[in-house]
Amino acid sequence: MTITITAFERSPDGGKGLARDTRVRWALEEVGQPYDVRLVSFRAMKEPAHLALHPFGQIPTYEEGDLVLFETGSIVFHIAERHVGLLPNDINARARAITWMFAALSTVEPPILELGSARIQEGDKPWTKERLPLIQDRVRAPLGKLSHRLGDDEWLDGAFSAGDLMMVSVLLRLRSSGMLDEYPNLATYVARGEARPAYKRAFAAQLAINSKPPTG
Amino acid sequence: MTITITAFERSPDGGKGLARDTRVRWALEEVGQPYDVRLVSFRAMKEPAHLALHPFGQIPTYEEGDLVLFETGSIVFHIAERHVGLLPNDINARARAITWMFAALSTVEPPILELGSARIQEGDKPWTKERLPLIQDRVRAPLGKLSHRLGDDEWLDGAFSAGDLMMVSVLLRLRSSGMLDEYPNLATYVARGEARPAYKRAFAAQLAINSKPPTG
Repeated sequence: MTITITAFERSPDGGKGLARDTRVRWALEEVGQPYDVRLVSFRAMKEPAHLALHPFGQIPTYEEGDLVLFETGSIVFHIAERHVGLLPNDINARARAITWMFAALSTVEPPILELGSARIQEGDKPWTKERLPLIQDRVRAPLGKLSHRLGDDEWLDGAFSAGDLMMVSVLLRLRSSGMLDEYPNLATYVARGEARPAYKRAFAAQLAINSKPPTG
Repeated sequence: MTITITAFERSPDGGKGLARDTRVRWALEEVGQPYDVRLVSFRAMKEPAHLALHPFGQIPTYEEGDLVLFETGSIVFHIAERHVGLLPNDINARARAITWMFAALSTVEPPILELGSARIQEGDKPWTKERLPLIQDRVRAPLGKLSHRLGDDEWLDGAFSAGDLMMVSVLLRLRSSGMLDEYPNLATYVARGEARPAYKRAFAAQLAINSKPPTG
């Protein structure tokens, strides 16, 4: 069955690979599954046809026959569960890899998103300059512990897994802040993820869309 | 094998059931699995013995034989995957239930946590009064869409699932703000979750610990 995902017609990041379709593309590339992409404009994302696929009006979505999924974590997990390459066979190692997926999305990413909101949505507010260091400390709290746990290891728990895919993707959002470089082993870990051929193909695919001149 | 989870020795909410061990207790009660609880002080949570179980120094953790898990989402999913009662058998319905778990944790909960940070960690800051309405709007954005999707349904997608367990648990954090009452169908949905016998047993178990007089 054909897999179709949705992505931004024009990503707000201009092709830096931070839109969440990159995470899904990366997972599909790791397991060697071809996929189609349907591009969605900001206006179309809020219309009933798209809301029927994604109740929160976001991208990506995932369609495969009768199945419609949203939420990047769920889509990546679905791909990892159905195909070989993103979850270990050992049942306990598999549960731990899934744990790292949730850790990336529930523990590490929320303060990073808050930092983004402070910079962008509240960038013009009088309190933002004084408030930013508080948010940066909220970002550092899990990062310091993650750095400690990773140590000199290549990946979070044995072989590369969907947990690493999600953690690297979340940490990539921090690069422009310079904060990732405060943790050299995390910066190396992220670079290790970006060096994977599957990541490179996923990144190139989203860049190809976002580097086209605007239509109309 | 015995299941052992960790919980706060004294929950910061004083037994309102908002600490994340309640979500795990609820899942275990839904599937009828007995469990032991090891209480952890705030000091012990930051010590090496606990950090070996939970790299971010939080509760809950889950131990079962050789398996050690952290992250509430991962623990609830593990329970749901291994036992009958929290995930549908139909493979597509199962994937959709998992989607709602991720939606609760990745889309609905982050702005609710941000509201908590604004109220508690930044409660004494000069900007908080002016800033709170911005955060409340960030909370409302997914809630309005969730309310629309739920409509008059009993649960998010057919029978009660781990997705509902997680969504109800996340929405419960909003009750004290009064914002849940802006969405009558969501308030009813949460009450429906709380009325489940398994939730009541989980709530009572955490309350029993938190209503004991402090020792020492």
